Amino acid sequence: MQQSGDSGSPSFNPLAVLEFMSDTKEEAIAWLLSRIRAPQEAGGAGLLVEQLGPGVSAEQKDNLNLFLVGASWERLLSGAEDVGLFKEYSDGSMRGFTCVNKHNFKDFQGDGDGFLSMAECQYIIKHELETLRAKDETHVPGYSHAKLYPGKSIIRRLLSKGILIQMFPLHHKEELKRLSFSWYKKIKLSLQPLDKIRHYYGEGQALYFGFLEYFTFALVPMALLGVPYYMFDWEDYDKYVAFAVFNVVWCTIILELWKRSSATLAYHWGTLCRKKAFEEPRPGFHGVLGYNPVTDREEPLYPNAKRQLRIYLVSLPFVLLCLYLSLYVMMIYFQMEGWALSVHDQDPSFWTGVLLYIPSIIYAVVIEAMNLVYRYAAEFLTEWENHRLESSYQNHLVLKVLVFNFFNCFASLFYIAFVMQDMVLLSQSLATLLITSQILNQFMEAFLPYWLQRRRNKKMIRKVQKRRTPGDKELPLAEQVRLEADMSTYLGTFDDYLELFLLFGYVSLFSCVYPLAAVLVVLNNVTEVYSDAFKMCHVFKRPFADPAANIGVWQLAFETMSVIAVVTNCALIGMSPQVKAYFPESETQLILWTVAIEHGLLAFKFILTFLIPDVPKHIQIKLARLEFESLEALKKKKMLEGAEFRKSIQ
Amino acid sequence: MQQSGDSGSPSFNPLAVLEFMSDTKEEAIAWLLSRIRAPQEAGGAGLLVEQLGPGVSAEQKDNLNLFLVGASWERLLSGAEDVGLFKEYSDGSMRGFTCVNKHNFKDFQGDGDGFLSMAECQYIIKHELETLRAKDETHVPGYSHAKLYPGKSIIRRLLSKGILIQMFPLHHKEELKRLSFSWYKKIKLSLQPLDKIRHYYGEGQALYFGFLEYFTFALVPMALLGVPYYMFDWEDYDKYVAFAVFNVVWCTIILELWKRSSATLAYHWGTLCRKKAFEEPRPGFHGVLGYNPVTDREEPLYPNAKRQLRIYLVSLPFVLLCLYLSLYVMMIYFQMEGWALSVHDQDPSFWTGVLLYIPSIIYAVVIEAMNLVYRYAAEFLTEWENHRLESSYQNHLVLKVLVFNFFNCFASLFYIAFVMQDMVLLSQSLATLLITSQILNQFMEAFLPYWLQRRRNKKMIRKVQKRRTPGDKELPLAEQVRLEADMSTYLGTFDDYLELFLLFGYVSLFSCVYPLAAVLVVLNNVTEVYSDAFKMCHVFKRPFADPAANIGVWQLAFETMSVIAVVTNCALIGMSPQVKAYFPESETQLILWTVAIEHGLLAFKFILTFLIPDVPKHIQIKLARLEFESLEALKKKKMLEGAEFRKSIQ
Repeated sequence: MQQSGDSGSPSFNPLAVLEFMSDTKEEAIAWLLSRIRAPQEAGGAGLLVEQLGPGVSAEQKDNLNLFLVGASWERLLSGAEDVGLFKEYSDGSMRGFTCVNKHNFKDFQGDGDGFLSMAECQYIIKHELETLRAKDETHVPGYSHAKLYPGKSIIRRLLSKGILIQMFPLHHKEELKRLSFSWYKKIKLSLQPLDKIRHYYGEGQALYFGFLEYFTFALVPMALLGVPYYMFDWEDYDKYVAFAVFNVVWCTIILELWKRSSATLAYHWGTLCRKKAFEEPRPGFHGVLGYNPVTDREEPLYPNAKRQLRIYLVSLPFVLLCLYLSLYVMMIYFQMEGWALSVHDQDPSFWTGVLLYIPSIIYAVVIEAMNLVYRYAAEFLTEWENHRLESSYQNHLVLKVLVFNFFNCFASLFYIAFVMQDMVLLSQSLATLLITSQILNQFMEAFLPYWLQRRRNKKMIRKVQKRRTPGDKELPLAEQVRLEADMSTYLGTFDDYLELFLLFGYVSLFSCVYPLAAVLVVLNNVTEVYSDAFKMCHVFKRPFADPAANIGVWQLAFETMSVIAVVTNCALIGMSPQVKAYFPESETQLILWTVAIEHGLLAFKFILTFLIPDVPKHIQIKLARLEFESLEALKKKKMLEGAEFRKSIQ
Repeated sequence: MQQSGDSGSPSFNPLAVLEFMSDTKEEAIAWLLSRIRAPQEAGGAGLLVEQLGPGVSAEQKDNLNLFLVGASWERLLSGAEDVGLFKEYSDGSMRGFTCVNKHNFKDFQGDGDGFLSMAECQYIIKHELETLRAKDETHVPGYSHAKLYPGKSIIRRLLSKGILIQMFPLHHKEELKRLSFSWYKKIKLSLQPLDKIRHYYGEGQALYFGFLEYFTFALVPMALLGVPYYMFDWEDYDKYVAFAVFNVVWCTIILELWKRSSATLAYHWGTLCRKKAFEEPRPGFHGVLGYNPVTDREEPLYPNAKRQLRIYLVSLPFVLLCLYLSLYVMMIYFQMEGWALSVHDQDPSFWTGVLLYIPSIIYAVVIEAMNLVYRYAAEFLTEWENHRLESSYQNHLVLKVLVFNFFNCFASLFYIAFVMQDMVLLSQSLATLLITSQILNQFMEAFLPYWLQRRRNKKMIRKVQKRRTPGDKELPLAEQVRLEADMSTYLGTFDDYLELFLLFGYVSLFSCVYPLAAVLVVLNNVTEVYSDAFKMCHVFKRPFADPAANIGVWQLAFETMSVIAVVTNCALIGMSPQVKAYFPESETQLILWTVAIEHGLLAFKFILTFLIPDVPKHIQIKLARLEFESLEALKKKKMLEGAEFRKSIQ
C-alpha cells in the first residue's frame, strides 16, 4: 500500500476520507481497496486511494486506518455522466453532461480541470463508492457476519456493520478561506454568495441559505409596518385588524413566489431537470432476503403490513401521548402564571414584576428541552419502523417532529388567544417565547459546538507546534484530516428548516398582536445567516453535497402553516373590538360573517396557487425547448431505424 | 385518380373520410392527395387515398369530393411507433411499441393484422394527416389566401379556411353490431363491455362510460339508505344528520377510489405511461407570423398580455354579468313561487295544488335554456380569447361553463337552504329541479337527435331501395359514407361530464333533505348508459379516439364539488333541530362547534387525499419496473459508449 506524505503524491487530489475501525482486519481493507481501485469494466469503482500518513504528532492511540480517496479527471467526468449532472451548454441552456460532446459545454476548457465544482466531484466520489457492489462474495473477507449478496452496496454494508466508521468529504483550505471571507467575514450590506455556497457545499445547502435570505427579505415589509405600530403605541390590541389582513395576503403570496425563485435557482444549478436516480434501500434497512419485484434483484424485503402496524399501533399512540404530555405541561405553566400574578397583585414590587416573566421563561426552556428529547424518540421510532427508502424515512420523521413541535410551541398561544381571549397576555407570551427560544437556539446551535471545537483545535495546534518551528500555523494534511474526522457531523438542514418553520409560525399566526415579532425574526435571521455560515465552515465536518431541486417537504409544511395562519388571523379579526362594534346586537351575525370571509379567503388562496405558475415563464420556455429537442431527436432516430429496418427486410 | 367501387379495391381498408367543398379546385385536391400518398422519406404521409364513387343514388347535388383514407399494415405499425402507443408485452407489462421488436408483443401475430384496434388505426391516420406539414409551398395551390409556411400543418390550414369541410373516421358495420349487442341491446344485469368500447371508440370514451358506471355503483349505498328514509317517512327534516355525515364521508372516499380505478384502467389500455406529444397550435389560433421560442419554427404568435386583457376585461365581466342575470331570474322565480302559494292559500283546490309546482318547472326549463345559451356565448368568448393550445382552450371553456352552471343550478337551492331556511321547500325544489332537468336532458340529448337521424336514414334507405332489390337492407359503402358524413358531429364528452357533475352536486350537496335524490340519479344513470350508448352508436358521427389517461379537468371539478359538499352538509347539520337541541341557550356555541367540526373534516379530507395513493400498489410496481429497466438500459448504453470513446482516444 502506497503511503502519502504531508501533501500526497503530486497527481493525487484527495477529495474524500474513509475511516475504518483501528483494529480492522488487514484482509478486509486490502480487499476493499483493490475493489475501489479496479477499473469499472472489471466491476470496480476506478478511483484512487492512498493511506494517510501517521502525521507529526503520531501517538499510539492515533487511528492509522484513514484512507484518502480521489480520482483522475477523466474518471470524474465519466462519473458526472453516471450521476446525470446538468451543466451549462454553449448556447446557454442546461443539458445533461456527456463525455462524448464535453467540448460543447460552456466552461469546459483544456482537459476539463476545473469544469466540475469540488462539491460535484465529492458527490460523484460518494455515488461511485456507494454503487460499488458485491459480485460473488458471500461476506466481507475476515468478517463472516458481514454478509454480502450479489448487487449489495459494499460501503453500505461496511457502514451498517461498523467496520467503516465514516466517510466524509475533505475541506479545501484555500477555497474555504475565500468563501468564508465573501460570506460572513466582512460586515457588509450585500446578498449571500449563493453560487459560491452551491459551488462549495452543493445545492441542498445553497437552497437553505437562499430560502433563509428570501424569508428575511419577505419579512422586511412586515417589520417596517410593525415598527410604527409599536412606536406610536398602536398596539392597544384594537388596531390589529389591518395587520391581520396584511398577514393573510402576505403569507399566501411569499410562498408562491418562493417556488418561482427556487425553480430559477435550481434551473441554473442544473438540478431542476436532473432525473432522480433509482433509490437504493437505506443503510439501516433490514429484512428477510428476497427478490425486489421492481428490479428482480436479491435484497432484504420487509412486509409493508408489518410497518403499517408499527406506525399505527406504536408510533401514532406514542405521538398522541407526547401531545397529551405537552398539554399537561402547558396547564402547569398556566397554574404557575396564575400563581405569579396573584403574588404580584398581593404585594407589587420590582421583584414580583420580574417574577411575572419567570413562568414564561421556564416554559420556553422546558419547550426547547421537550422538543430535543422528543426529537431523539422520533428518530428512534422512525428507525424502528424500518423504512426501505431514505425519502420515506425522512417524510415520516419530519411529520412526527413537525406535529409535536407545532403543538408544543403554539398550543399555549392558541389557548391564550381563543380560550382565555387575553390579548395582553398573548402579546407578552409571544415575546417571551420568541426571544427565549432564539437565544437558546443560537447558543445550542452555534456557540456551544464552536467552543467545543475551538478547544479541540487549540490542543491539536499546540501538539503540532511542539514538534515544528513556531509561527507556522498551517496544519499539515495528515493533522488536518484527523482534525476534520473528529469534528461533529452536520446532520443536514432539518433543524435549520425546523427553526425557520417555527419562526414563520410565530410571525404569520400571531404577529398582529405583537407587531415587533417580525422585527425580532428579521434580526434573528440576520444573525442566523452568520452563525449558520460559521457553523458550516468551522464547527462541523464538511457534508456531502445534496443535489436538491427544491426545499422538498418543507414547502408543504410552510404552506400548511400559511393555511392555519389564514384561519387564525380571521378568528383574531373576528374577535377584535373594532369588528365587534359593527355587529352590536348579534354575535351570531359576526361569527357567520367571519366564517364566510375566512372560507372566501381560503378559496382565493387555492385559486391563487393555481393561477401563479410554479416555474417562471422564461424557465418554462427553456424546459419546453429541451423536451422538444429530445422528442425531435427521438423521432429522427426512429426514422433512421425504420429506414434501416425497411432496407433490411427488402 | 383511382375510383373505388362499392367495397373498395381488395387490399384497401378505408379508415377515415376527407370531405372537401363540392367546388374545390382540382389542383388543390391533386396536390393534397399527392402529398398524402408520397412516402414519409419524401415528406409525405405515406397513406392510401381513394375517391368515393358516386353511389347508387347519385344525384346532381351529391358532393363528389369525398375521399377515403387507409394505410398498409406496415404503415400503421410505424405510425403506432410515431404516436408512441403502449401495448402489452409478452411478459404482461405495458411497453412502448417499436417496429424492431414487434414480435415480442403479446397479440402480435403474422404480419400484425388485427394487432391494432380500429380506434388506434384511425387515431394514427388522424395523427399522420395532421402532422403532414408544408415544405416550401407559400399557399395552397389555387387558393392564394390560404397561406402556408414551412412546418405548418396542411390539414389544419385547409380546415380553418373551410376548403376541407370535415375529416371523420368510418364506422365498421360488423363490429358496431357486435358492440351494440353486448352494450345495450340485451337487457341484462352486467357491467358495460369497457374493453370493447375502448377498442371501438378509444380511451376517452371508455373512461367516460367507466366513470358513469363507477358513479352509479357508488350511489347505490346512498340510494339504499335513502329508500327507508322515504318509505318510513323519516324525511321530517329532523333525522337528516346521519345522512349528512354519511354524505361527507361518501363524497370524499369515492373520488379518491375513482382515481385508483381510473389508473388501473388507463394502465391496461396503455395510456397511463404514454408520453404526451408536443402540442401543436389549435386550428383556430391566429396571430402575426414569428418564431416560436421553444421550437424555433415559424408560426403565428399572439401576445399573452393581449389575451390576459381579453380574459380579465371582457370575459370575466361578462361571466359576472351572466351570474347577476341568473340571480335576477332566481328572484323572479321566488316571486312567482310566493304568488302561487298565496293563490293556493286563498282558495285551495286540486288546480292550485298543481299550480304550486308550476313555478319550479318553469324555473327548471329556464335554467336549462339559460345554460344552453350561455354555453354558446362561452364558446364564442373562449374562441375569441385566441388560446394557442387546445388544452388551454378547453380549460378556460370548462371553467366558464362550470361556474355558470353551478351558480344557475344551485343558487336557488342555497338561497332556500341558508337564507330562507325552509327545508320543506328545499326538498320540493330539489325534486322538481332534478326530475325536470333529467327529462329535458334525456330528450335533448338522445331522443331529438335520434328522431332527426331516423328520418334522414329512412329517406336514404328508401332512395337506395328504389334502385336495388327490396329486402337487401344493407347499405352499399358509398351510401353509408354519405350517410355518416351527414350525421351530427359528436362534440366530445364535455356535455356528458357536465351532466354528471350537476347530478353529483344535487346528490352530494342536498340529498340529506331529499333522500330519494340518490335513487333518482341511479335510475337516471342507468337510462343514461343506454341512451348515451345508443347516441354514440347510431345518432352521431363516429368520433376520433382520444388517448386519455384520466378524466382530466373533471377530476378537479368533482373534487371541488366535494369540498363544497363538506361545507354545505356541515352547515345543514348545524341548522338541524336535533343538533340545535344540544345547545339550548347559546347559538354562538353551536356555530363555533359546527365551524370547528367542518374545519376538522376538511383537514381530514386533505390528509386522506395524501394517504390514499393515486395509483394502486401493483400498478406502481409495474411502472417502477419499466422506469428501472429504461434507466438500466441507458446506463448500459453509456458504459458501451464510454468504452468505445476510451478506445478511440487511446
